[in-house]
Amino acid sequence: MRIAVLVTNGFQDDEYTEPVNAFKKAGHEIINVELKKGVTVKGKLDKASVVIDETVRNIYVEDFDALLIPGGYSPDKLRGNDDVVDFVKDFAKSKKPIFVICPGQQLLISADVLKGRKITGYRSIIQDLKNAGAEFIDAEVVEDKNFISSRQPKDLPAFIKACLSKLN
Amino acid sequence: MRIAVLVTNGFQDDEYTEPVNAFKKAGHEIINVELKKGVTVKGKLDKASVVIDETVRNIYVEDFDALLIPGGYSPDKLRGNDDVVDFVKDFAKSKKPIFVICPGQQLLISADVLKGRKITGYRSIIQDLKNAGAEFIDAEVVEDKNFISSRQPKDLPAFIKACLSKLN
Repeated sequence: MRIAVLVTNGFQDDEYTEPVNAFKKAGHEIINVELKKGVTVKGKLDKASVVIDETVRNIYVEDFDALLIPGGYSPDKLRGNDDVVDFVKDFAKSKKPIFVICPGQQLLISADVLKGRKITGYRSIIQDLKNAGAEFIDAEVVEDKNFISSRQPKDLPAFIKACLSKLN
Repeated sequence: MRIAVLVTNGFQDDEYTEPVNAFKKAGHEIINVELKKGVTVKGKLDKASVVIDETVRNIYVEDFDALLIPGGYSPDKLRGNDDVVDFVKDFAKSKKPIFVICPGQQLLISADVLKGRKITGYRSIIQDLKNAGAEFIDAEVVEDKNFISSRQPKDLPAFIKACLSKLN
């Protein structure tokens, strides 16, 4: 399966590395997406760096099977860009799996695709999720149709297990 | 006037220093508030550091005349704490002035005090502000009763001018 990862500077290091390593180990292909192809972006803790494979303006939802959005400061930076928000909106409409953790859900809020959906997320964004019309559930992983969400780095094992199961 | 400033690590440096310097110059007193008294917190750009004067649990709205919430990563970190959110909620109810810039408005969202209020804020949180029931206005400064809000560092001159006028 081809998995797009939306990531920019300040991402939560292990929320990128752990799922991506698990997906690669399971034979899936990772395509890192940001505003500029070829740049290297760094994690918030400076423990991981990622080379961007594709520009968000030059990709199509049809070319991917799933979308991963790691947390940290990255989602809030990315959602300031309309191309990123439109891509997430189109992805959500396609009903292909979207994996979000921590404040990665901020991109789903900006894409306005959370009405009536069950979701979890980082403590600081609970009110934002409720205001977006989602039903917030305080659990390590929440699955609602094509959305799989988790709250924080310590939920990663359950998050990765649920994502891998969805990709099978 | 006594002005409480809610600030923690990762604050937008000039969104703290510029208003605070202007307020001090005008004769106002600044009390820096965070979870722990005595600690030093640093700006996102490492251009400013702030010593915390008071713990949020030990202060009362009655002891202050206004509240300033600078942006950066600071507001999102602070709103994960219920004492901070309760303080902001009480402050909003007191009808004393609240000055917010950039994503400082995230604390007003978590305090659930934005319904029907005119507000501006950083680009990435526009959808969050609308979802919170606020009327988003794209202007360098927006004043609605006791709330004065701005979008970003370049709005600082207009923001400071409006805040100082409110304090007179």
